[in-house]
Parts: sequence; structure tokens; C-alpha cells
Amino acid sequence: MSDLEDYRKELDAIDQELVSLFEKRLAVSKKIGNYKKNQSLPIYDKERERQVLLQNIRQITDKDSEVQVRHFLETVMDLSKEVQKDVRASTVDYDQLFASHPPKNDPKIGYFGETGSFCEEAMLAYFDEAPANPSNYHTFESLFLAIRNKEIDYGVLPIENSSTGAISQVYDLLAKYGFSIVGEQYIKIEQHLIGLEGTNLDEVEEVYSHPQGFQQSTEYFKNHEKWRQIPFHSTSDSAKLVKDSQDVRKSAIASRRAAEIHGLSILADNIQNESENTTRFIILGKDLESNPRCNKVSVVFSLDNEAGTLFKLLRHFAEYHINLIKIESRPVQGEKWEYLLYLDFEGNIAEENVNGALRLLQKNSVYFRLLGCYIAATKNK
Amino acid sequence: MSDLEDYRKELDAIDQELVSLFEKRLAVSKKIGNYKKNQSLPIYDKERERQVLLQNIRQITDKDSEVQVRHFLETVMDLSKEVQKDVRASTVDYDQLFASHPPKNDPKIGYFGETGSFCEEAMLAYFDEAPANPSNYHTFESLFLAIRNKEIDYGVLPIENSSTGAISQVYDLLAKYGFSIVGEQYIKIEQHLIGLEGTNLDEVEEVYSHPQGFQQSTEYFKNHEKWRQIPFHSTSDSAKLVKDSQDVRKSAIASRRAAEIHGLSILADNIQNESENTTRFIILGKDLESNPRCNKVSVVFSLDNEAGTLFKLLRHFAEYHINLIKIESRPVQGEKWEYLLYLDFEGNIAEENVNGALRLLQKNSVYFRLLGCYIAATKNK
Repeated sequence: MSDLEDYRKELDAIDQELVSLFEKRLAVSKKIGNYKKNQSLPIYDKERERQVLLQNIRQITDKDSEVQVRHFLETVMDLSKEVQKDVRASTVDYDQLFASHPPKNDPKIGYFGETGSFCEEAMLAYFDEAPANPSNYHTFESLFLAIRNKEIDYGVLPIENSSTGAISQVYDLLAKYGFSIVGEQYIKIEQHLIGLEGTNLDEVEEVYSHPQGFQQSTEYFKNHEKWRQIPFHSTSDSAKLVKDSQDVRKSAIASRRAAEIHGLSILADNIQNESENTTRFIILGKDLESNPRCNKVSVVFSLDNEAGTLFKLLRHFAEYHINLIKIESRPVQGEKWEYLLYLDFEGNIAEENVNGALRLLQKNSVYFRLLGCYIAATKNK
Repeated sequence: MSDLEDYRKELDAIDQELVSLFEKRLAVSKKIGNYKKNQSLPIYDKERERQVLLQNIRQITDKDSEVQVRHFLETVMDLSKEVQKDVRASTVDYDQLFASHPPKNDPKIGYFGETGSFCEEAMLAYFDEAPANPSNYHTFESLFLAIRNKEIDYGVLPIENSSTGAISQVYDLLAKYGFSIVGEQYIKIEQHLIGLEGTNLDEVEEVYSHPQGFQQSTEYFKNHEKWRQIPFHSTSDSAKLVKDSQDVRKSAIASRRAAEIHGLSILADNIQNESENTTRFIILGKDLESNPRCNKVSVVFSLDNEAGTLFKLLRHFAEYHINLIKIESRPVQGEKWEYLLYLDFEGNIAEENVNGALRLLQKNSVYFRLLGCYIAATKNK
């Protein structure tokens, strides 16, 4: 028998004792929880926890292990508080929440940008049937307003690009309007410089685009510093503007599809910095919607300034073996240097582990909102 | 004696046994660590950990506590692996790193923007003596290049605004160039619409500003939708452009100081959305610099897609009682949908807990870089 097997037998015996003791501790903690509830006492007693740490740390024999022992005891106390809190008594019933809002039949759809926009592409890729008479909107906020005014049931807009990152304005509007993400779609983005047919590059003086178009193509424009970059509503709106102007000095950054739709020529193709340039679009609805096939969840919550708060909140995800996909931080409007955190993670709201993590997250954060539970799209579209 | 005191005596007895068992387990783990080292075996054995969890979970008596017992065991195993890893044998000596780069005497300073820029203000507020002949740069990257080419020792540029959030281009350049943050400065930002003396608001047709100026003043511009918003290098460059043009149709968003320096008038004052609008500026240097008074640390690291990785990394901060100030996420350039995380937290690199957390973070993340250790500025300047 090797040394390793001997050691492991020792560990197995220790672990069995550890778990049995820990179970005993949880049982006592539950009694304390009931006692505190009856006496209306708070669950958390900072001074008591400090004492417990002190008296145990004082007695450890190998001072090199102090950090590990401290962390061990803190975890033991945190987990004991969890059973005191009786998480299952939480007041929000997520299943109920979803059941009350089934997906809409024959919905009215809106998208960001002009005909030929990447959002229109995302819309056509997302919905099984091409929506009849979709509306389009030239600012992100006008699309949110259209949902609020019930002009449309769903709106399609970009939230994140693989090379330029979050579209922060959309994150902020999600917090402001309180709507829900009901789906997502990835679209590969190829940006082209487009203009009137027969335009020579030497004739170009102005380039129109959504700011994202410029950000995604900074390398190309380093060789064309004289061109004036003029930010406009969207890349597709920029294409339309160039067409309407009939001016060879004006050009736009837009998709091949936008060029075709607006009868324009490609003056330089694939001008984006990264060949693998992809944007993630969200399908936005007024209410939460979900079904058993949904496998991705988005939430937003706020952080207070207490040491370790972020860690304590994220612990719930690790505890329930939930895979975090993305974390995004945005300032709280009107509050100086406070942050909202947006998390995307894998799972379905009806799964016990996700449900459990969300209840704990909600219980322990100052502000919390479930943004949606939807089907994760494949990234290689 | 109350019930609570009885219960607590029970807990105290249990905790003493728990800690003593846990110490025994750490001692065995260290032996395993040595054994594995001698046999060149990996520390992490996934199948063994799965087995340990399974056999213990199977035996728990109160199934309601399964989540807590699982987390308890995982923590016990994680902490045991920590002592196996012998973190103290890490190859990077941070103290050495700092000692080799003392702050420069009589440094050459550069800042972003034209004379009268907010960065110039931040520079004057940060340095005890007004720098002689500072250089100024009209793009963020040209300032980074100036540091690389040793034209300047330090550069001052904005990294974050309290209402619009991160200046993501600066975060990306920090990753690209590998320079260090040696200090920070907060400046209260009041944006004004400025123009030539005697200009009437009705005459204005174009507004020039850094994109941040527009983003910070969206509410004001909702009432002036006809004005063309033209993004320019910086607010101070925009002020200079208006002065040089001598054109009453042109206006700029800039500071009162920029208006005075360039001999312009304020056409509308305090047009920013948030009255408490503040920007955080960083002082950038080529090398790491620190001293015992430094109390803030910035790092950047990358995340792989393994479940719970972010949690596991942030755990080190909670373990060492380190307060996280800020988390920012940016895409990894050239890698689709991978992220770099930028963390700011409280502490000094020479403190044992910070040093320990950083060694663990470095050991366990795919990519890691210490961005700086510097004196935290007060936020209410």
C-alpha cells in the first residue's frame, strides 16, 4: 500500500468526524435560529463572531495555518447563519412570476436602426417567421419607450460586442426601465466602408457611423486620418443618409446588406479590427418570460461598500455550482461611486440550484432584479 | 442561564473539536503535498474530490443541510490544497519589484487634452509643485506612446466618471502597454456650454466636445436636438477650436477654466446631468512604484470559463479581509468572448494579507498583472 493511500485513509476518517460535527453544529444553529426568532433577536451578532474567531485562533498549534483556520471558521459560521435564516420562507415565487406571463402570439416587433441594420439581421435570425411590418427606432431609448407605450411587444438591440465590450447605454436603460430580456442572438459583424456607386476613395471627406462602427475599425482609420468621422444614429441610418445625400464626399460604415438595400457600393471591405467580430443582441420584452428549455439567466444587483460583500454574494453561485458567463459593472445613477453589477450565468430559474442562489442573492443584496431567463444562443453565428 | 448561553456553550465545544480536526487534516495534507511533490504528481485530483464529496454527502442525516455540508467540504478541500501548494515559494518578490523603481526626481509630465483641460487640473492638484513645461497630448494613445518613448515620465488621464462609468479605451490601453498606475486624483466636473463672447444661444448650430462631455450632458441636449454634436479630441481642444474658428455658430462643452484660458464666454452653465459629477484620473508611469503610505492596489487578470473561477479568485480577497473597491470587465483583444477583469482594492502590497491574496490570485489565474499600488485620493475634491 502506498503512502498516498494511507494518508487518504487518515483524511477519510477525519472528514467523517468533521461532517458529523458540522451537522451537530447546524442542528444547534437551527435551535438558536428559532430562539432568536421567538425573542425577535437579530441573526448576526458581530461581537460573538469575533469572540469565536479569537478564542479558536488563539489555540491553534501551527501558526502557519492561521489564514486557513480563520477562513474555515468563517465559512462554518456563515453556513450556520444560512440555516438560521430559513431561506425557503422567501416571499418571491419565481415559478409564479413566469407562469403569469406566457409568450405573446403574433407579437409586434421593433428593432434599432434603419432597414438593413445589424439589429434587423438579428431579428430575422431570432424569430422563426419574419415578423410582419416591424417598426424601427433610431435611438436606444425610443425603442424602450415604444415597449412602455405598448407600440411593440418586443425590441431587438445590441448589448455587447466581442471586441469593444459592453454597450453601456443599453445596460443603463435596462436598469432605468425595468424591462426583461426574453432572448438573445449573436451576429457576426463585418463592417465595410460604403458610398455611392463609382465613388473613388480619394473623393471621400466624411464618414458616418454609429460610434461602435468607429470603435470597431480604429486600425483602418489610422491610415485615413483626414476623413472626418461623424457619429450618427446607427450604421444603417448612416447608409441611408449617404444614399439620400447623393454626395460622393460622404461615406458610411455599414454592413454589406445595408449597402445592397440602399443601393450603395462597397469602397473598402472588412475594415473592422478583429476578423472575428461578433455582437450579442438581446430581445427585450416588458415582462419576464421563461420555459423549461431556457438555460441562461441575467440579473442586476447593487453592492454596498462592506468588505467582502461581492465575494459573499458570488459565493452563492459557487456553492450551487453555477457557471458565471459575464460580469459587468455600471455606476448607479444619482449615487456617486456606487455600482450596479450585471451578471449572466448558466441555468434555468426552475432548477433548484439557480432558484436557491437567486433567493440568497436577493436576500443579501441592497438592490436586486431578475432581468430574464432565456435560451442561450450559439456564439458562432 | 438563558437557552442562548447553553446553545453557545454547545457550539464552543463543537468548534474546538472542529478546529482541532481541521488542523489534523491540514497536517496530513502537507504530508500529501510533499509526497506529491517528490512523485511529481499534480495537487488537484478531481476524481478523488468527487469521491470524498459523494461518500460524505451520502451519510448526512438531515437532507435539508446538503447544500451547506457540500460547501463545507469543498471549503475544507480547497483550504487543504492551499497548504499543499506552499504559496510562500512563489517566485515573484513584490518588495524587490518596488525597491528597484524609486519615484523619479524632477519628472517630465504629460497630460491629456489642451491647456485648460480637466487632466491639467488633475495634474496641478496631484503634484505638490506645478510641473515645469508639461507636455499635452490629444489622444489617449499618444500619451502612452510618449511614456514608452521616454518623452515623459508620468502622464495624467481620466479612467472613470461617477455618472458615465469606465473610460474603456484607457482600460484597454493599460492592458496593451503594460504601464503602471502610480497615483490617482478625483476632480469635480462641471460642464458648461461655451462660445465666443456675445454669442446668442439661437445662433449655435454645432457643439464640439469629447464624447464624455456629450454623455454627461444628455438631459440638457434633449432640449437642443437641432444642434449638431461633433465629437472632438477633448473638451479643452473643443474650446480652442471654437476660439480659433471665430465662428458664433460653433460652441463647445468645457470647463469654466478652459473658457477663461481661451477667452470664451459661458453660454449655459452646469449642463451635466448629475450635479455631483466627478472624474477619477490616474497618474501613469512606466514602472511600478510604491511606498508604505500607499493604500490602494489595482490588478488585472483573466478568467477562464471553468465554473466558479471568478468566485474562487475573489475568495482570496474575502479570506484576507480585503475590501474590493471596483470591478471592471473588458473583452480580451483578439479572443472572442473572453474577459479581462480589473480590480481596485484597499491595502498595501507590503502588507502580509495583500501580498498573500496577490500571490494566490497570480497562481490561480491564467493571466495576471499588478497595475499599481498607490495612495487613494479623497473622492470629494
